[in-house]
Amino acid sequence: MSSSDIFIGETIGTAILILLGGGVCAAVTLKASKARNAGWLAIAFGWGFAVMTAAYISGPLSGAHLNPAVTVGIAIKDGDWSNTPTYFAGQFLGAMIGAVLVWIAYYGQFQAHLTDREIVGGPGAQDTATAKSVEAQEKGAGPVLGIFSTGPEIRHTVQNLATEIIGTFVLLLAILTQGLNDAGNGLGVLGALITSFVVVSIGLSLGGPTGYAINPVRDLGPRIVHALLPLPNKGGSDWAYAWIPVVGPLIGGAIAGGVYNVAFA
Amino acid sequence: MSSSDIFIGETIGTAILILLGGGVCAAVTLKASKARNAGWLAIAFGWGFAVMTAAYISGPLSGAHLNPAVTVGIAIKDGDWSNTPTYFAGQFLGAMIGAVLVWIAYYGQFQAHLTDREIVGGPGAQDTATAKSVEAQEKGAGPVLGIFSTGPEIRHTVQNLATEIIGTFVLLLAILTQGLNDAGNGLGVLGALITSFVVVSIGLSLGGPTGYAINPVRDLGPRIVHALLPLPNKGGSDWAYAWIPVVGPLIGGAIAGGVYNVAFA
Amino acid sequence: MSSSDIFIGETIGTAILILLGGGVCAAVTLKASKARNAGWLAIAFGWGFAVMTAAYISGPLSGAHLNPAVTVGIAIKDGDWSNTPTYFAGQFLGAMIGAVLVWIAYYGQFQAHLTDREIVGGPGAQDTATAKSVEAQEKGAGPVLGIFSTGPEIRHTVQNLATEIIGTFVLLLAILTQGLNDAGNGLGVLGALITSFVVVSIGLSLGGPTGYAINPVRDLGPRIVHALLPLPNKGGSDWAYAWIPVVGPLIGGAIAGGVYNVAFA
Amino acid sequence: MSSSDIFIGETIGTAILILLGGGVCAAVTLKASKARNAGWLAIAFGWGFAVMTAAYISGPLSGAHLNPAVTVGIAIKDGDWSNTPTYFAGQFLGAMIGAVLVWIAYYGQFQAHLTDREIVGGPGAQDTATAKSVEAQEKGAGPVLGIFSTGPEIRHTVQNLATEIIGTFVLLLAILTQGLNDAGNGLGVLGALITSFVVVSIGLSLGGPTGYAINPVRDLGPRIVHALLPLPNKGGSDWAYAWIPVVGPLIGGAIAGGVYNVAFA
Repeated sequence: MSSSDIFIGETIGTAILILLGGGVCAAVTLKASKARNAGWLAIAFGWGFAVMTAAYISGPLSGAHLNPAVTVGIAIKDGDWSNTPTYFAGQFLGAMIGAVLVWIAYYGQFQAHLTDREIVGGPGAQDTATAKSVEAQEKGAGPVLGIFSTGPEIRHTVQNLATEIIGTFVLLLAILTQGLNDAGNGLGVLGALITSFVVVSIGLSLGGPTGYAINPVRDLGPRIVHALLPLPNKGGSDWAYAWIPVVGPLIGGAIAGGVYNVAFA
Repeated sequence: MSSSDIFIGETIGTAILILLGGGVCAAVTLKASKARNAGWLAIAFGWGFAVMTAAYISGPLSGAHLNPAVTVGIAIKDGDWSNTPTYFAGQFLGAMIGAVLVWIAYYGQFQAHLTDREIVGGPGAQDTATAKSVEAQEKGAGPVLGIFSTGPEIRHTVQNLATEIIGTFVLLLAILTQGLNDAGNGLGVLGALITSFVVVSIGLSLGGPTGYAINPVRDLGPRIVHALLPLPNKGGSDWAYAWIPVVGPLIGGAIAGGVYNVAFA
Repeated sequence: MSSSDIFIGETIGTAILILLGGGVCAAVTLKASKARNAGWLAIAFGWGFAVMTAAYISGPLSGAHLNPAVTVGIAIKDGDWSNTPTYFAGQFLGAMIGAVLVWIAYYGQFQAHLTDREIVGGPGAQDTATAKSVEAQEKGAGPVLGIFSTGPEIRHTVQNLATEIIGTFVLLLAILTQGLNDAGNGLGVLGALITSFVVVSIGLSLGGPTGYAINPVRDLGPRIVHALLPLPNKGGSDWAYAWIPVVGPLIGGAIAGGVYNVAFA
Repeated sequence: MSSSDIFIGETIGTAILILLGGGVCAAVTLKASKARNAGWLAIAFGWGFAVMTAAYISGPLSGAHLNPAVTVGIAIKDGDWSNTPTYFAGQFLGAMIGAVLVWIAYYGQFQAHLTDREIVGGPGAQDTATAKSVEAQEKGAGPVLGIFSTGPEIRHTVQNLATEIIGTFVLLLAILTQGLNDAGNGLGVLGALITSFVVVSIGLSLGGPTGYAINPVRDLGPRIVHALLPLPNKGGSDWAYAWIPVVGPLIGGAIAGGVYNVAFA
């Protein structure tokens, strides 16, 4: 693959990943969305199929890493770091583009949601079902930050890091063994489908505590966009938490690369 | 493919697409349906599997476009517009047949729903859970129009167009890259399965604002049938909105064809 | 395939189909089931995966028809009726075995449900959420008949027949085109997976009015078992409706066979 | 396969199986989890994709039994018991590791849940929605035991055993016929995907009465971990029931092996 194919593929692919992944969070969260309150199963399948769609589209160009933790895990497996900066650059740019596209697609819903006094903390807000966002705001997270970035239900640095490490470790082990499962029968597309169900699995099973970033740019790129967008009453971007969904997945990916080289190679 | 195979394939395929897609909306909406209130996840999977079923059946005859936006995107990719009118004709006819079949399959449910005073706007209707349809009626949308055609939660021409363009762009990019993913291993059927999950993904992630037409005939054909059917108290067909789900998807499909030719070909 | 393989394969396969299909209805319906009130999406996926499991197991023995409507459609396509009686016999026997297995697996739940006065029509039953079963009982359907057989939400002979014909027609068209889709690449197993998602689709989209029998033995076999089992307070078996889910699917299957021969062969 | 590959593969695979399977139970059960009350469909898909992920990762090393009942069924089919002790050892160790990982990933949630007076049986607990766990505690099951091990809704030894036997029988028949379905086309990965949907099917259809252990180490390993972990107010480990999810699956697996040899081989 050429450097330009890698950069273009990762940019397009990660933009689609975040458009669809952030999109399902917007769909389930925002006022005046037909999918409001569709539940956790919708979020888990939404993110899983977001990975599938993005991987299917960008795979022929860049191999569809879409995630620095994946790039790190594969680099450790292959012992080749030459394209890593190009992957990172495309992923980071794509994640920010995707977050802007979510804002465009849900423009009216963001406006309606953030100008609703019961949602953004007017006097009666404590009594409503969305009072939780008020509580989160006090910790630095605005009422729609969850559409852009992840946040923990319980703040506990060691646990939050551990959960992200464990989730990313499982993801990477599945991606790294794809070569062993597909060898010789040309079923790479089926492997991509299975990887997307692995993401559904991680969402259902390990997403409860932190919202499963398992991808540094998936969290950091949209968090920057949240800080920059002209959203009314958007509240803080919770920068105190921002390092955990970056560092945790990178550690998890690196451990998986090491375990692969010891146990599977 | 012969012209008659294309016409017959698109007619049968699009009829099945709208039968199953409109069917899930009827199932979730109408009084006296066992699936009433099954939720957005049911709608998203229902439309996705509708595409899969229709594509699987009509694929061997016509290649299963089932959507003028798909036909436009593929024509731009291939630089060949010779069969486009035949595709459009079959798709349009099929969409109207499908909408009539939904009415037949749910005949009693339509009658029960539309003769229920609380649903169609009797004196006490404002107080019921279905009062929303009364509000929609004032804007020109009857209480069961959503089973036939899409409509926005918030009327905002630029946003509504943008959401349809973005959704169709993602769909077409996935369809156009199918050839790159399947090359040489005969997995076209698997590509069709993945495309149907892409439709589930678009539904979950981008369906919230407008109900994701992403297909001109999917919206226009059933809207005409809604206007013609002898349904009691059916209300208006919301013609003011009708051009957006036609124009938006065609623009999105054309952009995807162009991007494909620049970045992937 | 030998006659004994066909008979054994259809018996085992249809028994598993009804065990899992009836099982999900029991799981969602009965008191003291962990899956109670899991919703329509659970039922649609439950029946779809029941077909998949049964087809995967019995396919190598009998080709996995599991449904007289499938046998009729394939016989019309192939112009060969020689094995039809063997298929029918295995399917009918298997359906009854499967219904008995549901009763064994949910024995305690059936007892608890049917001896609960609020459920089976004691004085206060009209006021409870399950009062619907009391109303259905007056029409001849007992409170747990829905675990065994289908029944209409609105009794309308023409519509109920039409809904079953339409649903079975879609199912058969997908099964008959499997040969066209799989030709030459050995993907029969993938075709079976897709067929199971077609069943999910029919459930989500066309199941609302009648509960989608789309299979004569799926309805008649368990209805006979319902009549014979020693269940307390089980109520009637609704024999007045029993002919519709037998005749409708056979008509739908035959029409699909004819359409296939005209348009696809 | 070498003995060490089998042991390592089964240990890693079963640890991932229980991490993801126990994880979805924690996600749906515990206070301060984003997925709380996501419903039975989430649990059924969560366990199914847990099997898929674990099988995909460990398949190249050990063939991914991950379940003593699978090992027994395959040994009966093949008439070869030489590796059975190695499989058992890896499965048992892996199941315990997986249960510990669930505790780490949900550490704060376990603490919050088990120190909530309304949940663990303070004076007002009988009046809350979680009073059921108090009732279960009296029978020997602590309020979070369901995250580790299975338990029956109705205690009935014969039925509980029968349900586990029937569920495991269906699972094994699907696994044993995989060889017949995949013969000659290299689609083992597709077979693994289908097996995971079979697990979803068993969960939806046969999970209602006992919670479908269908795997001795899936139940016994985490039950031992539950007894050992320093969880506050954890309650009993319900040892009176512990033999049923061990013995039932082994019987079901053995019967399936025998039926396979008679009817399919």
